[in-house]
Amino acid sequence: MSPLNLYRSSALMMDFYQLTMAQGFWKAQMDQREAVYHLNFRRPPFNGGITLAAVFKHLLKRLNNSVHQRRYSIFKTLKDSSGNSLFEEGFLKHLKQMELSCHIDAVEEGEIMFPYEPLVRVQGPLIQCQLIESLLLNIINFQTLIATKAARIFIAANGAPILELGFRRAQGLDGALSASRAAYIGGCAATSNVMAGKVYGIPVRGTMAHSWVMAFDNELEAFETFAKTMPSQCVFLVDTYHTLEGVKYAIEVGRKIRSLGYQFLGVRLDSGDLAYLSIEARKMLDEAGFKDAKIIASNELDELIIRDLIQQGAQINVWGVGTHLVTSQGQSALDGVYKMSLLKDPQGVWKYKLKCSEQMLKTTNPGMLQVRRFQNNSSYSGDAIFDLNQPPTDQDWVIVDPLDPTKKKPLKNHKTHRDLLIPIFREGKRVYNLPSLDKIKQKVCHELSFFHKGLKRFLFPHQYPYGLEKSLYEHKIQLIEKLRNSHEKSINYTGLAK
Amino acid sequence: MSPLNLYRSSALMMDFYQLTMAQGFWKAQMDQREAVYHLNFRRPPFNGGITLAAVFKHLLKRLNNSVHQRRYSIFKTLKDSSGNSLFEEGFLKHLKQMELSCHIDAVEEGEIMFPYEPLVRVQGPLIQCQLIESLLLNIINFQTLIATKAARIFIAANGAPILELGFRRAQGLDGALSASRAAYIGGCAATSNVMAGKVYGIPVRGTMAHSWVMAFDNELEAFETFAKTMPSQCVFLVDTYHTLEGVKYAIEVGRKIRSLGYQFLGVRLDSGDLAYLSIEARKMLDEAGFKDAKIIASNELDELIIRDLIQQGAQINVWGVGTHLVTSQGQSALDGVYKMSLLKDPQGVWKYKLKCSEQMLKTTNPGMLQVRRFQNNSSYSGDAIFDLNQPPTDQDWVIVDPLDPTKKKPLKNHKTHRDLLIPIFREGKRVYNLPSLDKIKQKVCHELSFFHKGLKRFLFPHQYPYGLEKSLYEHKIQLIEKLRNSHEKSINYTGLAK
Repeated sequence: MSPLNLYRSSALMMDFYQLTMAQGFWKAQMDQREAVYHLNFRRPPFNGGITLAAVFKHLLKRLNNSVHQRRYSIFKTLKDSSGNSLFEEGFLKHLKQMELSCHIDAVEEGEIMFPYEPLVRVQGPLIQCQLIESLLLNIINFQTLIATKAARIFIAANGAPILELGFRRAQGLDGALSASRAAYIGGCAATSNVMAGKVYGIPVRGTMAHSWVMAFDNELEAFETFAKTMPSQCVFLVDTYHTLEGVKYAIEVGRKIRSLGYQFLGVRLDSGDLAYLSIEARKMLDEAGFKDAKIIASNELDELIIRDLIQQGAQINVWGVGTHLVTSQGQSALDGVYKMSLLKDPQGVWKYKLKCSEQMLKTTNPGMLQVRRFQNNSSYSGDAIFDLNQPPTDQDWVIVDPLDPTKKKPLKNHKTHRDLLIPIFREGKRVYNLPSLDKIKQKVCHELSFFHKGLKRFLFPHQYPYGLEKSLYEHKIQLIEKLRNSHEKSINYTGLAK
Repeated sequence: MSPLNLYRSSALMMDFYQLTMAQGFWKAQMDQREAVYHLNFRRPPFNGGITLAAVFKHLLKRLNNSVHQRRYSIFKTLKDSSGNSLFEEGFLKHLKQMELSCHIDAVEEGEIMFPYEPLVRVQGPLIQCQLIESLLLNIINFQTLIATKAARIFIAANGAPILELGFRRAQGLDGALSASRAAYIGGCAATSNVMAGKVYGIPVRGTMAHSWVMAFDNELEAFETFAKTMPSQCVFLVDTYHTLEGVKYAIEVGRKIRSLGYQFLGVRLDSGDLAYLSIEARKMLDEAGFKDAKIIASNELDELIIRDLIQQGAQINVWGVGTHLVTSQGQSALDGVYKMSLLKDPQGVWKYKLKCSEQMLKTTNPGMLQVRRFQNNSSYSGDAIFDLNQPPTDQDWVIVDPLDPTKKKPLKNHKTHRDLLIPIFREGKRVYNLPSLDKIKQKVCHELSFFHKGLKRFLFPHQYPYGLEKSLYEHKIQLIEKLRNSHEKSINYTGLAK
């Protein structure tokens, strides 16, 4: 079977241990016990202030299919090291008959989120919650990361359009396609990726490659031929031999285009000092009467370089951003995790669940979690992660920093609030319609305007108040202490010395 | 059309400007002119010594289909900003009838390569060379990067097996699948990715997640239930609450497994100080008579952390490496480029082509290039990039550093040599059969043994001699000077001041 056919079912989109655990739960007759899992990240990407939730559109469809399409004939062929089939016939039949019956809640795409806040909550049979883990993580981790990177670049560009040009260095074909979508949500205006244009309706743009120029004896001939064949599409790449010479030729051909009644769109710079070169090119274009001609710049750009170039007076109208955006150079993965927080016991009573790691950062939160975002007029005043089964009774909520319990903050004087997780699936059926990509894009700008602008700083941003609602925090500490106490009769620490 | 169906043809796997340029070449009646392009990278990833060539298996198939499957009905729907169809009917018909007729040469997977050395050479009609650019770059850049990262981790692990566990944080679904293959070539022993196991026959492994442990009232019950259901698969994850307590419970259940005639395979550590914890766990396992039980470690590992842990006496038998490997943390893209180096003029005479950038790093090499690797007994003595149309006449070849012409080196006293680019396609038909994945893996170890071991250093590695063969270098300089001279009547540099 080709990998492409396999993609169509989601049958194999998992880590191996999901399957062995699934069989284990099934054999132990625990597979139908009801569980609750949450997906959250633990550190904001790029040490920045904002993280933009994004979920691949087709995740919705995949999840619909992911359980009942598991073809047991495929798993049957998996063997252990002795050559025995790893999975029992009965288990595989059970898998084959399984249909997704989970409730899934998630935050909307384009929502700005903070560490430990659940992006997704899954409630359903233990075996199903477990089988969809890797798929959820793969899709949400990547999409959220790229949407966030794009938003940072969008902030840096300060209103100038950004073209996403990353296809050629993306991490695989899907790494390119899904990055184009996330980048568009995060603020890009268009993509070079033809497939993304077709699949998602994202505007597609492009200029010319150096090979176009090199295919001719000189730049003048190259630009003239392009103008003859596609007069309405003329953005000339001017750095094949010498950038400012290239601009001269572009202007020469631009005049011919104008005399034919077409608009000369502009030039692209792809190497050298983009501040210096764009300032010189702007002067030359203006002097030739091409005040509307755009200067497009590309060459390993990211949010920090764009910010610097703008500060240094660069005359760049459109930013072409590729590799650094679609591969998220600097931080190539979001550290999202998906953890159990509740499980019904055999008597049907909910039991709180918690992973109590060697690292506080990795300790999880128990309960049926929701995120409440409080608002004062036109600004958000804070987020509280709380347990739906044990909501606080006081009118004023107090939040506790997940990593520093000495930091507490009452969320006072708010006028309104909304809960960020909303129903996506009920009993395995989709109950949510995805807004259009442009609506999601608009939501991002709308949401950003409700936060303190210091949150947009690239490093050491404003600290927006978010945390665990106090009674949830106290409950968590109780559970940790209970777990620790049950381990008090600990082994002797012998240290490193033998 | 769903993105998955689109994947099956390669019709849209390109940057938009490939299409506009293709139409331009077609309208200018240049599309059938014969051209030569090369694909190479410019900087070794991670500032390391080795770069491992890897090409996605299905690239071969995709290339076969990429040209003649372009469905013109898709391109027809692309519009310019005024809503007019961007592409002419005649051009789209031409695309539809096109069949791949290129010669393609490439280096074999698992070959160790250096900057500027072509990994791929394409010779054929200009329009075809151009249309396959983005696809070639996307696949080769990513695969080569991940194979290289895996080789570095393989070197660090010093013989201990590496499990690739990256699926959940990979850059998209294909970012996971193709990374699993490249990681296996580079030295990984197995993957957690079930789909990679099925598609590529890579061994699939896994242990258990924290959720398994959390699904029970305590670790003892969790391990016992796992042992009951899958007694031959027992690797217990011990850090859910307190690692060394977890080891105690694992040993307790291990004794039961042993008494039933099964082997207790080991434990996995996933947080905390892996050096300290593994040393303690080893002592405990040994004292309990489980000298064969393995200690598997995971938690944001990469080559540098593994090297340090080993130096600090960590008792780790198997390394689980995920995010940092499959997303190539630290350098998330290889900077591969694909550039024209020859084009026939209308009279059918080959013309040399060169891009003469503002940055020396980005200047390309002209000609029909090949890489010759010289060998003395059991070690390689140097590589020369040379022009097949103008090979040197001297017996001793001299190479010149591509970035520092003062560095020249004669390649003397070699006994044998081989040319690294070999035929893959001839007139669009595949003439090369891909070796098995295990053969490619063996090739990597074999090749590594022929290089100075200092090349394996992670930073500031041994400088292996590679460069442009002297007559190619001199020809390149002539061409640059010719291009520069033709621009001598340059504009006035006015500097930044107005």
